[in-house]
Amino acid sequence: MTQDTDSIGVVNTEIVRLDLPEGGFKLDDGGCLSEIDVAYETYGTLSEAKDNVVYICHALTGNAHAAGRHEPPDPDEPDAWWNEMVGPGKGIDTNHYFVICANILGGCKGTTGPSSIAPETDSPYGSTFPNVSAGDIVNAHVLLLKQLGIERVAAAVGGSFGGMQVIEWVIRFPDTIDHGIVIAAAVCLSAQGIAFDIVGRAAITSDPDWKGGDYYDSGSAPTQGLALARRVGHITYLSREIMADKFGREKWRAGQSDSVPDSRIDKFHVETYLEHQGEKFSRRFDANSYLHITRAMDEYDVASQYGDLKTAFERVRSKVLIVAVSSDWLFPPEQSEELANALLTAGTRVSYCLLNAPHGHDAFLVDVEYLSEVIRAFLPWVGPRPDSRRIGLKGGEENVDRVKRRDLHKISQLIEPGSRVLDLGCGNGELLTRLAETSGVQGVGVDIDIHHVIRVIERGHDIFQADIDSGLSMIPDGAYDYAILSETLQAVRKPHLVLNEMLRVADQGIVSFPNLGYWRNRLRLSMFGRMPTTSLDAKPWYETDNIHPFTYRDFIGLCRQDNIKILDTVCLTSGLLGRIFVATGLSNLGADLVLIRVAKE
Amino acid sequence: MTQDTDSIGVVNTEIVRLDLPEGGFKLDDGGCLSEIDVAYETYGTLSEAKDNVVYICHALTGNAHAAGRHEPPDPDEPDAWWNEMVGPGKGIDTNHYFVICANILGGCKGTTGPSSIAPETDSPYGSTFPNVSAGDIVNAHVLLLKQLGIERVAAAVGGSFGGMQVIEWVIRFPDTIDHGIVIAAAVCLSAQGIAFDIVGRAAITSDPDWKGGDYYDSGSAPTQGLALARRVGHITYLSREIMADKFGREKWRAGQSDSVPDSRIDKFHVETYLEHQGEKFSRRFDANSYLHITRAMDEYDVASQYGDLKTAFERVRSKVLIVAVSSDWLFPPEQSEELANALLTAGTRVSYCLLNAPHGHDAFLVDVEYLSEVIRAFLPWVGPRPDSRRIGLKGGEENVDRVKRRDLHKISQLIEPGSRVLDLGCGNGELLTRLAETSGVQGVGVDIDIHHVIRVIERGHDIFQADIDSGLSMIPDGAYDYAILSETLQAVRKPHLVLNEMLRVADQGIVSFPNLGYWRNRLRLSMFGRMPTTSLDAKPWYETDNIHPFTYRDFIGLCRQDNIKILDTVCLTSGLLGRIFVATGLSNLGADLVLIRVAKE
Repeated sequence: MTQDTDSIGVVNTEIVRLDLPEGGFKLDDGGCLSEIDVAYETYGTLSEAKDNVVYICHALTGNAHAAGRHEPPDPDEPDAWWNEMVGPGKGIDTNHYFVICANILGGCKGTTGPSSIAPETDSPYGSTFPNVSAGDIVNAHVLLLKQLGIERVAAAVGGSFGGMQVIEWVIRFPDTIDHGIVIAAAVCLSAQGIAFDIVGRAAITSDPDWKGGDYYDSGSAPTQGLALARRVGHITYLSREIMADKFGREKWRAGQSDSVPDSRIDKFHVETYLEHQGEKFSRRFDANSYLHITRAMDEYDVASQYGDLKTAFERVRSKVLIVAVSSDWLFPPEQSEELANALLTAGTRVSYCLLNAPHGHDAFLVDVEYLSEVIRAFLPWVGPRPDSRRIGLKGGEENVDRVKRRDLHKISQLIEPGSRVLDLGCGNGELLTRLAETSGVQGVGVDIDIHHVIRVIERGHDIFQADIDSGLSMIPDGAYDYAILSETLQAVRKPHLVLNEMLRVADQGIVSFPNLGYWRNRLRLSMFGRMPTTSLDAKPWYETDNIHPFTYRDFIGLCRQDNIKILDTVCLTSGLLGRIFVATGLSNLGADLVLIRVAKE
Repeated sequence: MTQDTDSIGVVNTEIVRLDLPEGGFKLDDGGCLSEIDVAYETYGTLSEAKDNVVYICHALTGNAHAAGRHEPPDPDEPDAWWNEMVGPGKGIDTNHYFVICANILGGCKGTTGPSSIAPETDSPYGSTFPNVSAGDIVNAHVLLLKQLGIERVAAAVGGSFGGMQVIEWVIRFPDTIDHGIVIAAAVCLSAQGIAFDIVGRAAITSDPDWKGGDYYDSGSAPTQGLALARRVGHITYLSREIMADKFGREKWRAGQSDSVPDSRIDKFHVETYLEHQGEKFSRRFDANSYLHITRAMDEYDVASQYGDLKTAFERVRSKVLIVAVSSDWLFPPEQSEELANALLTAGTRVSYCLLNAPHGHDAFLVDVEYLSEVIRAFLPWVGPRPDSRRIGLKGGEENVDRVKRRDLHKISQLIEPGSRVLDLGCGNGELLTRLAETSGVQGVGVDIDIHHVIRVIERGHDIFQADIDSGLSMIPDGAYDYAILSETLQAVRKPHLVLNEMLRVADQGIVSFPNLGYWRNRLRLSMFGRMPTTSLDAKPWYETDNIHPFTYRDFIGLCRQDNIKILDTVCLTSGLLGRIFVATGLSNLGADLVLIRVAKE
């Protein structure tokens, strides 16, 4: 995917001392820093209007080196951590955007942290380094931007703890950010996630070399504890499946390899891998930074910080994209859904996307094919947009654009201009685009297919990737004027539930469905003794998606039973006979597609 | 559930020195022990025929004290670990069974382990204690039985590492065990599970107090490392959901409680909980035992030990019950399925059951309501069985016995006596019982409903708890003479897949289905314009389980297309008109239920 694009080339890290306000940099937890250096890198070119800035917030143990290469390379970290995503023609396209990534406050990669020299004492902070929060970290990001002469970013993007920084950014500095992209993150870490961090921190603080945090001048460092903490962390970044694939139960036999630590005894591959990861990490990272940053992550909690999620998210002015990874168990999809739900409830423009990837939490670093597409589709393109920028989704375009629904025109006629519309099973967003163009409607889609999701986002609409059958719990009561089920109700597993959910989240529903009562269908069963499917879809009975076929009359019956009012009915048909039936009032016989506008009594 | 039953009362642990063979107790790994003490407890009364023995294999850090209470109680472990399961009237009923539980070899609760005195040196084994395997542990169990004058157990049961012991037992000593019950275990630990153990062991061995394993006379022990290992382990025993429920993000505020370790600083509840667990554990358990036993668990691998799973399981003579826990991520259900699959492939009589419990791996200790029922149903009852022994499944009986299928009699007529039968969607096992009684058929059922599973096991049949729609991958090709889909095909999501899977696993298929082409159904659609469902089931179109209705003719069409041969057809009908249609050859009009025997061309 990156073969035909240019590499980003050599980029070295810059360090800048922030201009701090009078009295220093006040921290959320009450502390203060009188001096802050920030290490950062930039890729691409800042536009004259300064409207093409994409800011990358790195995760727990990342650094400013998101892309390109250092000259000379760092032997412990030869590769930039997000080269797959950032570069010419990539998901975050450096031909178009000016990309910034800075090491976070409290880190150990050039930005002020516990291992930095405290100006007050002229020796390393060590145990005296104050607690920093996710908010402090974002505050430093915004100060860096200011120093670079930038008032506003087109987008900030981050995965894991980086995603938490983006969440905090859109809340705390709403006027500095247009788009927020939150990947594999949440409004707080789960109890299980905290538990793993607790174990990791305990491993460090029980290492005799930690010395209460003041080890910098002692000639040794708590590398054993830090390595142990890293091993625990590393397990949580991978899914069980990928660990089984990668290592299984394979062993290094004693003496098999000189490169294996302690090669005198048999070891599982996973053992030597974790030992290697831990040992490498303890060479390149500072134990106190690990303590501070994991603590900042554990303590981050939007609800408790702002009172509740709604209060917090009502401050947001950005469009937000939430991306979850199916196999992530550190920040599981449920938590991303919770975040998306809360943003929606607060009235934010939000899209939610679930990537099907086996790698676990680390997928956002290593399995970027679909992630690149989603980010590319969501990022605001400044100036004329090339016709087709998408790569790596072979066949996707045909797939999503094939479906042409003949009820779309009729549906758009039933909708009042300027209303709030939810399109359930929105497909590639054709109806949403039509409504936006003809009625100025800002609609939201729901669909399960990732190709549809990418296309709808690219068209500029908001979308929730979800299975309608699981209910619409992410959508608050009465959030929409209209909810639409276009040729979808007969294909869901629980039509009754879906119909009622539809009228919970919207004042009115518009339902279109193929009519099993259409004369050709009746003929097929009564005369030919076959299940009528051909007029419903192209698939035979044993493969049809239409698992709950019903007639116009059946639908009326259900509406009566559930006290659902019928406001409008449109009967679509074809052929002379169908038209005659409809004209003479025999709609259940004549209509092959029925479109009904409904509301609760 | 236990209120109306008597407690088991005071039971104290006995210690016995095993009569070892000449040359001592040879270990799998090459070592040898010249002396072995075993600590054990028994509950209930041994029958004269000695045919009521249930042997409990405990998990990693358990002990012989499975039930009852010690007098005086141990302050660090006041409760027996499986009191919920073992006792009068409980899942393992001590009114009926003679129950034995022994501390495992390598442990530290009375059975010989690293902290025991080595007879050769008259000082603790420490670093000289040899590696023990799961097989060695089972070997000790069987020697203990011999010493107690028992040749054979009616059943052995174990969860987690205890389940691995049961697996090893049915393979290694097939003639000493009638029933094996394996709960939340697998033929080997996953790479992820090994990784967690590796971290735990590294925490112990990097504790300066470990001293290479020879710490017993040093005045201190590696309690800090052991406590850290326990914290890691404890996280893996709970599901993310239960941790969120139990702890959430709640905190102890500084000074809030004297009972909190280091109450000067704020701590998450989960932090104090894990600290408490770790600290308590490090008081009651020996670090070297933890190293040895986790190593035995990590190393256990049936396939590598016996060449492959099939070779291993062909030795098995017992009936085996596999139980998985839905939220267990240490021994996930996929691994239990793999085990059940391998046993089935080797020709073992096996049942598989998936408990829906939120507690994670520990569910087998704490959430025993359904587990008790499954075990009770599976254990062989000696002598006349009380009419209804089941408790805690209120309403279950009515539920499972309600369905009376009128095609059962016809199906049983189509099946050759003595053949191997698989009943897909077997319900409460009515057909299986009928086949066993009338044709001497030992059938196997597949069903998704736990109430059905319990009932079928209780009836003495084997059953796989599975969703037919996910395919029958657990069943080898051609394993059965007949597979039966009684009134099920129209209710699956993928009828085509299911039909083909059926004819992969069996030579012949017997399919019965409601005929959509029945004249009443045709009339309902053609004359009344309503989806015909009433003759298919009692539910309306929007709730019907029959999501792929089809006609007799539709089915014939699919068979032709897929080269499926029709061997027999039985048309069931009711009413005069139906009978006339069938008699005059208009079966698709006359039959309301069709039964067809098919085979691949």
